Amino acid sequence: MTYRIDCVQYANWSEKIFRQMREGGVDAVNATICYHENFRETVQNMAQWNRWFETYPDLIFKGRWASDVKLARDTGRTAIFLSFQNASPIEDDIGLVEILHELGGRFMQLSYNNQSLLATGCYEAEDPGLTRMGKQVIREMNRVGLVVDMSHSADRSTIEAADHSERPITITHANLHSWQPALRNKRDDVVRAVTQNGGMMGFSMYPHHLKGKTDCTLEEFCAMIATAADRFGVEHFGIGSDLCQDHPDSVVEWMRVGRWSKEIDYGEGSAAAPGFPDQPHWFRDNRDFGKIEDGLRQIGFAPDEVAGLMGGNWYRFFDTNFTPAKAA
Amino acid sequence: MTYRIDCVQYANWSEKIFRQMREGGVDAVNATICYHENFRETVQNMAQWNRWFETYPDLIFKGRWASDVKLARDTGRTAIFLSFQNASPIEDDIGLVEILHELGGRFMQLSYNNQSLLATGCYEAEDPGLTRMGKQVIREMNRVGLVVDMSHSADRSTIEAADHSERPITITHANLHSWQPALRNKRDDVVRAVTQNGGMMGFSMYPHHLKGKTDCTLEEFCAMIATAADRFGVEHFGIGSDLCQDHPDSVVEWMRVGRWSKEIDYGEGSAAAPGFPDQPHWFRDNRDFGKIEDGLRQIGFAPDEVAGLMGGNWYRFFDTNFTPAKAA
Repeated sequence: MTYRIDCVQYANWSEKIFRQMREGGVDAVNATICYHENFRETVQNMAQWNRWFETYPDLIFKGRWASDVKLARDTGRTAIFLSFQNASPIEDDIGLVEILHELGGRFMQLSYNNQSLLATGCYEAEDPGLTRMGKQVIREMNRVGLVVDMSHSADRSTIEAADHSERPITITHANLHSWQPALRNKRDDVVRAVTQNGGMMGFSMYPHHLKGKTDCTLEEFCAMIATAADRFGVEHFGIGSDLCQDHPDSVVEWMRVGRWSKEIDYGEGSAAAPGFPDQPHWFRDNRDFGKIEDGLRQIGFAPDEVAGLMGGNWYRFFDTNFTPAKAA
Repeated sequence: MTYRIDCVQYANWSEKIFRQMREGGVDAVNATICYHENFRETVQNMAQWNRWFETYPDLIFKGRWASDVKLARDTGRTAIFLSFQNASPIEDDIGLVEILHELGGRFMQLSYNNQSLLATGCYEAEDPGLTRMGKQVIREMNRVGLVVDMSHSADRSTIEAADHSERPITITHANLHSWQPALRNKRDDVVRAVTQNGGMMGFSMYPHHLKGKTDCTLEEFCAMIATAADRFGVEHFGIGSDLCQDHPDSVVEWMRVGRWSKEIDYGEGSAAAPGFPDQPHWFRDNRDFGKIEDGLRQIGFAPDEVAGLMGGNWYRFFDTNFTPAKAA
């Protein structure tokens, strides 16, 4: 059996989008619920998800374990996993790592663009690597089963996290820097550090991460995946679309600036193009996962490789990394 | 098989106490983690419990479901369930009911001595009954499986809660007012409202709830239980010892006054005796549950009645009331 798993989305969630997930046959979505939010605000976002789960039980439910992806497929629904793109929800309190895992949190980025208490973000000029608290928190995340995600972290911090972590880590959403030299895409030594320790990377369809941005073709995207598979092993990759659907542009401003600056920071955008970029025509939203699957087949991946990239690899990763570490 | 369950304790927790639980053969303890704490402070107390669970895995673990009581007995440990003696942890946010249940919260009092946003406490002069929010929150507690506890609530509010709730409610710790007319003990019409709807009451060994206080004998205590069983049915009763062990007297002051008053309120104590009262000699701590069992046998309860009172009745209640309500 095969699964379709998207390991990052952040939409202006609605019944329409949940129905599109079903139309696209998406068994699981890892939903971002935090960019800058503190613990209490993150819990508020969880409570909002609980309302959606209560309101649309025939479309979605809260995902906690890999087995929920199977349950979703068997019952024709989408399992929504909840994750954090920043370390802000644990504030300065290592005890909140386990609390957030108990609440169903499954991935946490150690930093988001900026320096955090744990690690450096990819937009900082200097990257001194993991902090003292960062090393402690990785150990605690390993213990409880909260997965380290370094998508928006800087290179040295990412490599150190991959080496320091006793369980595999992830880059849930990025592409190869050698293909599209965006600040957020990952250099080969970073991808190698993550994958050689058993980690996973999800390919992003956020236009700023694509060669040619919105004009990138499906064939170019799939060729990049083939390159990555050749270099690092196909089993280490999946999809992390970074789909940001139906948001007003004020939301991308919040994602970039939060409360940390009074000045606008355009991130991957610019003063001329400050808003969300248009999606490529071959991936408008959840309904288009079938096109990705076709593209992977046409670029020459074998059926089992396609199945792995579309969800099987993430499923295997979920299955071994969401549960607490075995006692020594 | 039989279980020993104590449905309320609030101790200055330590390895010594956890070992006493094992010595007393206590399979499950419902531990209070909130008297006046708001959400964030309650989470802090949960994180502290997680530290104890991590430190003493051979003695205790976090209880979530009735099956954990069986697991505890089968593995020679004590399952610790976490509960709130006040509605303060949900603040003004009904969404926190489900969040707290996801974190393992299993009982919540709707009020603690004073008026809350939900219901009236037993020390208020007037009891206008359930509030608008109180009715909404009871429905939400019913939905997710967070049990209503009215131990410190006023009579009218308690009776209204028993009638309004679609699932059985509890008085986890109190005795019969007709036996010892303490403000916290429950009049027959209150006990009847709770038990006739399938609810449960736990008998307290907190001296202020006992006839003769510290000097109350085991025989008198068990005779009171026999009276309650005759009046309302033995299957509705268990133990909720209210054991407050190893605390300095500053803690009982916090329990009584929290942050709501600048003046001391002696509660069930007095200016002459402001501290924790001494335990009766037949129930010093968790090691003495065997004595209660002997006392119940000697007062004439049949073996299956003794087993029910010592834990079987709570086990049955846990088994049907901690899980979410079945979808209609």
